[in-house]
Order: sequence, then C-alpha cells, then structure tokens
Amino acid sequence: MLFGAIEAGGTKFVCGIGNENGEILERVSFPTTTPEETMGQVINFFKDKQMDAMGVGTFGPVDPNESSPTYGYITSTPKIKWRNFDIIGELKKHFNIPFGFDTDVNAAALGETEWGAAKGLDSCVYMTVGTGIGGGAVIRGEMVHGMLHPEMGHILVKRHPEDDFAGNCPYHQDCLEGMAAGPAIEKRWGKKGIELQEVDKVWEIEAYYLAQAAVNLIYTLSPKKIVLGGGVMHQKQLFPIIRENVKELLNGYVQTNEILSDIDQYIVPPGLGDNAGLCGAVALAKKACGI
Amino acid sequence: MLFGAIEAGGTKFVCGIGNENGEILERVSFPTTTPEETMGQVINFFKDKQMDAMGVGTFGPVDPNESSPTYGYITSTPKIKWRNFDIIGELKKHFNIPFGFDTDVNAAALGETEWGAAKGLDSCVYMTVGTGIGGGAVIRGEMVHGMLHPEMGHILVKRHPEDDFAGNCPYHQDCLEGMAAGPAIEKRWGKKGIELQEVDKVWEIEAYYLAQAAVNLIYTLSPKKIVLGGGVMHQKQLFPIIRENVKELLNGYVQTNEILSDIDQYIVPPGLGDNAGLCGAVALAKKACGI
Repeated sequence: MLFGAIEAGGTKFVCGIGNENGEILERVSFPTTTPEETMGQVINFFKDKQMDAMGVGTFGPVDPNESSPTYGYITSTPKIKWRNFDIIGELKKHFNIPFGFDTDVNAAALGETEWGAAKGLDSCVYMTVGTGIGGGAVIRGEMVHGMLHPEMGHILVKRHPEDDFAGNCPYHQDCLEGMAAGPAIEKRWGKKGIELQEVDKVWEIEAYYLAQAAVNLIYTLSPKKIVLGGGVMHQKQLFPIIRENVKELLNGYVQTNEILSDIDQYIVPPGLGDNAGLCGAVALAKKACGI
Repeated sequence: MLFGAIEAGGTKFVCGIGNENGEILERVSFPTTTPEETMGQVINFFKDKQMDAMGVGTFGPVDPNESSPTYGYITSTPKIKWRNFDIIGELKKHFNIPFGFDTDVNAAALGETEWGAAKGLDSCVYMTVGTGIGGGAVIRGEMVHGMLHPEMGHILVKRHPEDDFAGNCPYHQDCLEGMAAGPAIEKRWGKKGIELQEVDKVWEIEAYYLAQAAVNLIYTLSPKKIVLGGGVMHQKQLFPIIRENVKELLNGYVQTNEILSDIDQYIVPPGLGDNAGLCGAVALAKKACGI
C-alpha cells in the first residue's frame, strides 16, 4: 500500500510517500508561508500520486477529536495565517481517501512504536528538542488525547542552582521550553549549541532540565520508552547525562527493569532518526486504514 | 448485578458490595496488618456474598499488566509484609469469578468517569491529597498503564518563594508529596491542616503546589477533568485558589473552554465523595465483566 504523508512544521512542510513498512519512497519540502501558497504546493505534489490514505502530523495546537465540528483544524497557533485553518478539510477537497490527523509529535510517537525505537511496544513518549520543545504520547497503542493533546514542552521545571538565565518562553518564561529549547541555549551562552559541544556545563544544565521532563513523564504517563529527538538531541553526549540525572531524581522509587538495569535502552534517540515525523504521518495514514 | 469491591489502603481495607449503578449496598473495613490476618477478614466477609465479579483497587506499586507473571501482585511497596504479595492470586483461591485489578487511584479515576464528576467523559485524572499524594488516570476510557502506572504524587515542583520547608518525602524530599501531603502541612506549620483553616498563607502555599501538579497533568495527559480528593481537599477553600493559580501558570497557552470559561467545572472535588475509591473498585469489577 502507498500512503501520503505530511509533516507540517513552522518553517517547512515535508511531504512524502511511504509504504506499510514505514519506508519513505519519495520526499520533498516546501516553505511554510501562507495556507494558500503552501497548501497549493502540497496539493500539487500529491495530485497524481497513487495513495490509499493520507496522514497529517502538524504543528499545533490542533483539534484531533473526530466528533468535534473543528476536527482536522490547526487551532489557536501563534502563526496568525494558519490560525483556525481546516487543513484536513482543504485536503479532502482534493483527495477522496481516508485521513489520519494529529500533532507532529503524537504522529512521531506512533511512528516510533510502529517502526522505530519503541517497535513492538504499545506505549512511548516522543519529545523533540529543537527550536521549540514538543512531546507526543502513545498509550495502549493509541495517541493520547483528552481535553486537547499533550503540550509537554511547557511543563514547569526547577531551576538549576547555577543557572540565572531568565528563560525565553513568551508564555511562561522559564518553563521547559523557555529553559532548554535551542534558542534558550543560544541566548544563555551567546553561541549556538553546536559551537558549545566541548563545554560540559552547557550540557549538564541542559540535561538537568530534560531529566526533569523525563521524570515527570514517568510519574504521569509511565511510558514504556522515552524517545528524545530534534536538533538539540544531535548532541549525543546529552543522553548519558540525562539518564544519570533521571536515576538520581527517581532515587529508587520506580523499581522497574527499564530504570534499574536497562535505562540505556529506555531513554533513547529516535529509531527513525530525523524521519520520525514523516514516518509518523505514514503511520497515521496506515492507522486510518485500520491496519 | 452485584460486585465485590476492595479498596486496599495502607491503614485499612474497605470492602463492600456494589451494583452496576455504583451504589454501595454494604461496607465494612478492616485494619491493614499482615496479609494473613487482613486477607483472612476480607475473605471471611465476602465468602457468602452473591457476586458476579470482584474489583480490587490497592495501594501500590502494583503489577497491572495482565500478560505479566506477577499480574495482580502488590510489588515493591515500603510496607514490607505486603511486598510481592499476590493479592489477586489469594482471592482467586476463594472466588471463581472475574477480577479487575489496579491501583486505588486508577480505580477511583475509573469510578469518577462511570458515576462521578467525570461521568460521560472518557478521560479524567483523579488525585488524592491526604497522608500521601497519589494519582490515577483514565484516557480514552482505559486506565493509564505503560512501564508501570502513574505515580503522580512524586512529580517535581518549584518551591514557593516564601516556603523554606525542606520537604518530607523519604525518597525525594521536596517532590509534590514531600511539600503538599497532609504530613508536610503539619510539619511545616506545627499544626494539622484542620486547625489552620483560617490561615490564608497555608492554603496559598498548598494551592501553589497542587496547581503545578494540575498544570503538568494538563500538559502531559490533557485530561478532560481533574478530580482532587482526599483528606486535605476537604479544605474546600483550596479549589478556587488552585484554579486561579492554574490559569495564571497556563497564561493563555491552552485555549480550551474547560480552562478559559469552565474551570470551576474542570478542577473539581470527587462526585463520589469519599466513596471514590470503593466505587472505583466496583467499576473495576464491572469492567472485568466487559460491561
């Protein structure tokens, strides 16, 4: 089977065709400008493709509730032109096939359980740490929805005792995203993370915040795997420090093998690498076909 | 139909018989001593009852994973005598009926969606604030399990700027439970919460911590309802302060009706009152019958 996949991000829309094994057979990307322009290019790309279904994982917030009148909308995003945009409605005008729809990070979490680091598990959290921080979750094989969907980037964190950076989240100042996303690193140290690779303190502080996120996720969602992706996580030296911090913070309270003996396999990079989002959209499409 | 229900707590086991409407027709309680003694009393109580199924909601941690060899066990509890106790196995020796099994708080969350404050919703969090803090969650109609189950009492919180209490969680010192459970209030102020009803600062600080918990739950699980029960929450003055703090902390980031206009109906006391746990066990039994 062939699936159309859209990973809609704030700077670009990645579009592709994938199969039921999560293999990406074709991929292109278009800059995120206006819905008219960007969606025009997207529709043009897909219009002659063979597709059994389409999956859309997008920046949010979104309305993923199928019984809601605004299902399939990007809702209260700060990107004004995309606010209350009916992305699934627009696509349905052109493609009469089943659609899957969710946040980019819920889609990535699903993709990781299908073909990635959480393959064979019915539960995982996928958190991306890049220009922002976002997280999605699959529990019992289903993406987590409720009042809305996870927005894990904005959980509260305790300040590192040596960190006097004010934080730069426009909503919450020193929430997780405000303290630990790429722009926070750059603003705190006056250089991009990639130029700070050798400065241990940078990653000690970064890991301190990301470990708090992991611990809170363990205590609330109890995922079977925590997958950390995004540009900042290309700094692979973060993983062992995060794991160490998580063990220290849990302090023996959670007595599972995942924590006590297999933490190297519990907090991991995406099995799908930088394709987690696009493969996630393929997984959404596949799920929309009931397979 | 008639269901046997057990709410197993650290100080007492509450046992009862309920029907499919969540009505409790009979209830007794026994002190929690040793498994031999307490379970003897429990089994004696139920032995001549008419029951279609039984539900057990218990202090944890537990193994709620039906495919695990230790399913139905209380596992690594600090209550030594109950550690690795096969509570469901013990009951099954005496009652050949379907069993439902989960943490007391996951059961309470289920009960609240069946008959309580979250009736008609497929999602809620139930958090109890008493001698300890615990939380359970239902998402898409199912109790949240993954690596383990929620242990929300131990999430990290930011210290209130005027609070110099060290915290009294034996594992984490100043986690949520260490800062906001009943014993933390008593230790901080030198009096029980019930004697401090008129002291605004007590409840301002208490609400500060509980609001952080609510906000992190909104960002991770996104429940459709947050139900706060337990002895400390009998201080009803807490609710409006918690709601106010939650709105401040979210700061407009979550644009849902639940938050923006209906928060009085979003963060609420248990609809089942102090029966949330026992009714939850009835709900587990009912679910075990597939109804």
